[in-house]
Amino acid sequence: MEGERIELLSGVEDHHGGVVVDVQDPMDSTLFSSILQASIYKWSQQGKKGVWIKLPIQHSNLVDPAVKAGFRYHHAEPDYLMLVRWIPDTPDTLPANASHRVGVGAFVINNNKEVLVVQETGGKFRGTGVWKMPTGAVNEGEDLCEAAIREVKEETGIETKFVEVLAFRQSHKSFFEKSDLFFVCMLQPQSFDIQNQASEIEAAKWMPVEDYAAQPFVQDNELFDFIRKICFSKLDGNYNGFSNVLTCTSSGKKTYLYFNNRDASLSLASKEDQA
Amino acid sequence: MEGERIELLSGVEDHHGGVVVDVQDPMDSTLFSSILQASIYKWSQQGKKGVWIKLPIQHSNLVDPAVKAGFRYHHAEPDYLMLVRWIPDTPDTLPANASHRVGVGAFVINNNKEVLVVQETGGKFRGTGVWKMPTGAVNEGEDLCEAAIREVKEETGIETKFVEVLAFRQSHKSFFEKSDLFFVCMLQPQSFDIQNQASEIEAAKWMPVEDYAAQPFVQDNELFDFIRKICFSKLDGNYNGFSNVLTCTSSGKKTYLYFNNRDASLSLASKEDQA
Repeated sequence: MEGERIELLSGVEDHHGGVVVDVQDPMDSTLFSSILQASIYKWSQQGKKGVWIKLPIQHSNLVDPAVKAGFRYHHAEPDYLMLVRWIPDTPDTLPANASHRVGVGAFVINNNKEVLVVQETGGKFRGTGVWKMPTGAVNEGEDLCEAAIREVKEETGIETKFVEVLAFRQSHKSFFEKSDLFFVCMLQPQSFDIQNQASEIEAAKWMPVEDYAAQPFVQDNELFDFIRKICFSKLDGNYNGFSNVLTCTSSGKKTYLYFNNRDASLSLASKEDQA
Repeated sequence: MEGERIELLSGVEDHHGGVVVDVQDPMDSTLFSSILQASIYKWSQQGKKGVWIKLPIQHSNLVDPAVKAGFRYHHAEPDYLMLVRWIPDTPDTLPANASHRVGVGAFVINNNKEVLVVQETGGKFRGTGVWKMPTGAVNEGEDLCEAAIREVKEETGIETKFVEVLAFRQSHKSFFEKSDLFFVCMLQPQSFDIQNQASEIEAAKWMPVEDYAAQPFVQDNELFDFIRKICFSKLDGNYNGFSNVLTCTSSGKKTYLYFNNRDASLSLASKEDQA
């Protein structure tokens, strides 16, 4: 009598001696348990290191059997959960999950020395009368120079051009256990009539810089006061932040590099002068 | 006859009209389903918006019933899964998950104009003979200025002091669907004898800057060549990056702000001169 066979889980090999299984078809959880056990045995024999299982949310019945088989959570997105198990008896070198959220704030100023400011309908400044720069989160896959332009457009209808990153700050435990990077960007307005406003914005206007700076929320907060001083230094023409240049990596990927363009140009020019 | 009662899920209210349930005790999945349905009804009556359920990995049997009750994944860490459901008939304003991983590269140079470089045992440069700056991931909750110091110490044993962020780049889809921010930092060596090396490092040495720059991997990659030029501009004394200052927010949180300290100082000084 021939033995019956079960089909093992099939996966794609990665560049680190691991394998990635993308479960696409529905499966009974008891059957999945057996197949997973047998597959782990095979991967172990093959010397595989990290085994990744990507489970679409519609197969949430398979989460429990995967955990029972020694898998742990790696990360989750709205529509799937990624589990992982390190097979060999060596220290786990699996890469960490995304650790930061990224935000942008936009310093937009017109020729009358008026800053573009908004009042928010929610959050900690709700009902305080505080006028603040437009701010927002950088979307997944979005360049921060483009996120700043998008946020200003969404909140005030103003069209802008990205100039520079003036400063940035990193903070921790800002959202669950995650960290946060916030980039203060200077943008140049290309239009001046404040039009549409996103639902989270109560009001938007151009405000004289002196009035903006005189607000207690700016003066009483060491961080905001520092940022205000940096923005004003920029206005005086004495300050240089990081502008952006589009470059290309060896794998052909486009990527923005942010750096002090004025200083780098000076230095390169002086080298050419010497040559 | 009195009706029997079931105890509803208890949660902590958040600042956005939502509620966070932290499931700590084991529960039968069928019982959890009933309690969850009843709890959702109560939250709906109370006008709650986002309901968050934090499920420790040992309660993975409750993932499937939560998904069946209309919850979706928000994020996961090795030991727990966070699910969320938006209750009202309004657009979902739930905050996005962490979107970026953050890395640092360290430009460390001694008084003989030698750069600190390493060869890696794994990854894309394995076996290529390429000498590169120490690089690594910023840990969750770690300041990037401290991450750069830690990576150099781990990979080469060299003690350093943080000087500046010289440049940074943002790239996308670098790890699953996540984005990546990479900060090139200049550090000042405080010791010179290369000692211990982390397991991922094959070799470490001080290398004359000319030899570093002459490597094809630096010259043939537009991004690396740009970064090399910026580092060398800094060496020539013409370049100014972003240094760090420890500030405090209104909530008393310590946070590092990174900015062009030389320009900001000049500007503040000139204002005082005018006064």
